[in-house]
Amino acid sequence: MNQIRGSQSISFGEAPYLISSACVAGSKEAEGPLGKLFDMVNQDDLFGAKTWEEAESTMQKEACVLALGKAHMDAKHVRYLYGGDLLRQGIATSMGVEELQIPMFGLYGACSTSGEALALSAMSVAAGYGEYMLAVTSSHFGSAEKEFRFPLGYASQRPLSASWTVTGSGAFLVGRQKSHVRITGVTVGKIVDYGLKDSQNMGACMAPAAADTILTNLKDFGRSPTSYDRIITGDLGYIGQSILLDFMSKNGHQMRDRHLDCGMKIFDQEKQDTHAGGSGCGCAAVTLSAYILPKIQKGEWKRVLFVPTGALMSTVSYNEGASVPGIAHGIVLEHC
Amino acid sequence: MNQIRGSQSISFGEAPYLISSACVAGSKEAEGPLGKLFDMVNQDDLFGAKTWEEAESTMQKEACVLALGKAHMDAKHVRYLYGGDLLRQGIATSMGVEELQIPMFGLYGACSTSGEALALSAMSVAAGYGEYMLAVTSSHFGSAEKEFRFPLGYASQRPLSASWTVTGSGAFLVGRQKSHVRITGVTVGKIVDYGLKDSQNMGACMAPAAADTILTNLKDFGRSPTSYDRIITGDLGYIGQSILLDFMSKNGHQMRDRHLDCGMKIFDQEKQDTHAGGSGCGCAAVTLSAYILPKIQKGEWKRVLFVPTGALMSTVSYNEGASVPGIAHGIVLEHC
Repeated sequence: MNQIRGSQSISFGEAPYLISSACVAGSKEAEGPLGKLFDMVNQDDLFGAKTWEEAESTMQKEACVLALGKAHMDAKHVRYLYGGDLLRQGIATSMGVEELQIPMFGLYGACSTSGEALALSAMSVAAGYGEYMLAVTSSHFGSAEKEFRFPLGYASQRPLSASWTVTGSGAFLVGRQKSHVRITGVTVGKIVDYGLKDSQNMGACMAPAAADTILTNLKDFGRSPTSYDRIITGDLGYIGQSILLDFMSKNGHQMRDRHLDCGMKIFDQEKQDTHAGGSGCGCAAVTLSAYILPKIQKGEWKRVLFVPTGALMSTVSYNEGASVPGIAHGIVLEHC
Repeated sequence: MNQIRGSQSISFGEAPYLISSACVAGSKEAEGPLGKLFDMVNQDDLFGAKTWEEAESTMQKEACVLALGKAHMDAKHVRYLYGGDLLRQGIATSMGVEELQIPMFGLYGACSTSGEALALSAMSVAAGYGEYMLAVTSSHFGSAEKEFRFPLGYASQRPLSASWTVTGSGAFLVGRQKSHVRITGVTVGKIVDYGLKDSQNMGACMAPAAADTILTNLKDFGRSPTSYDRIITGDLGYIGQSILLDFMSKNGHQMRDRHLDCGMKIFDQEKQDTHAGGSGCGCAAVTLSAYILPKIQKGEWKRVLFVPTGALMSTVSYNEGASVPGIAHGIVLEHC
């Protein structure tokens, strides 16, 4: 029996399996510490396309096709696809998954979208709405800079609090077919707004939301940080991490020893100079597929709380003076 | 028992109820044929805000508060909120629903978003993931023109195939509490692309997707158009309707006598000159709340197939030469 827990969480009775996953990444990511773990990388970041947007769509399609291929699955057996990205009107997803012809739900949760997609995929499988669901997200440095900041040719300087959008896409096949990783529960996030307005310091904007979701998850499931081998946020980066650990500490939870952030993991801080770390929908997604899931599959980590974090803003909203609130969704992953 | 039907549909065992709804609309909509049916209208379309984006957020919040109020419900009893809009990064929704502090899933399905939100709300209630879910969408003429087309001050001419973005928001409370309308099934849409590239003729771009979803619904549930008192599309408008009826006719289904389109219903074609009709996420949502649901509540219509339609594009995608594919989700509404 699926059970609702506390105010925001669901515990699955027959927990859906994370059957297979795949990730596609760009050249800078390929040079980083996780470089050898990606399923596909590309040297010019265009993936054979003519525009950054098309390149991002291509990554999504390739990630989906690879994840399906690893499970020897045809797209027609996937009941619903849940996907999204950072671009206006989620265009990378629409154009990316179109060819697969899977009935689809388009999502927008900023960089928390991989959590949102995994939550809805697991909820749909656990409810019996189909045997297989596909969750996919992406981001691309080129398309994100064009969307949110300045054309690359301007060579604008970036503040030290800025993060570097990851070029990458991760796709996840969720279903009833057995594997060594189950999604045993989810905690759906609320929008948390501390009034911060600096879109170039997204780690600070998102840290309160990450703390809120982690604290709610611990409360809803009656757990402490030690109940998890790792608590892994999406893309808080170096500044966001220190704020998150402060928040947790003030709420009586020490978790420095078991906290990881995908944005701090994906690039080499010494050699790659990304300032605050990596970010983007793709950051958490490719790190989950390339680095986190293999450790859970092997049983090195028995239970992980995966918490992708999103900064809710648009170029229009911050130019009009609106704050940048955050949202984070929690996914409980367990070895089996 | 919930049952999956055919390739894309779900039939709910204990069908969720559409408990209450509310709609907020702008001045042009107030002057139209449904004008007297809206819960709230505003004369300057700014709803007390300083920008079109903030105005759209205000509409969403007001629609949610009114829908909750009609059911004498506090926001804290709503388990999850499903919402989206047309703006980049779904900012109208993030800023609009933030104050309600309901755990939320951000969606993007272009003008099909009301269908997407209703489908996920019903799926969540039917799965036992909570007693109450809120579905909300909006669009605003001012923010949409700014987002997709030209600043209003340019007074650009619009082609006759163009539709007029509805200023409006509709919110729907879905749950287990009895009412006279149930969501008995859903058909989740696929992306359908006939290669059309004219973003100023969205009716033509979306009509194939509407036909695909309606045909799939009829097949999945073993029904014919006469099984429904009305089949109601979101915002195909005059051009899209004629294409849809042709498609249906070629597939052996005559449905001219029972087809309605919200985009043709919301404005007076003689007096208000919107060219192809109304469009936008808000179009189907406010028409559902103001005009369709009361008729189902009273039993005038026993069973309705509600099919919001979306054109998947961004200003970047069509300027880069991409086609404008469509998507449509089908919601089966029944009197009880």
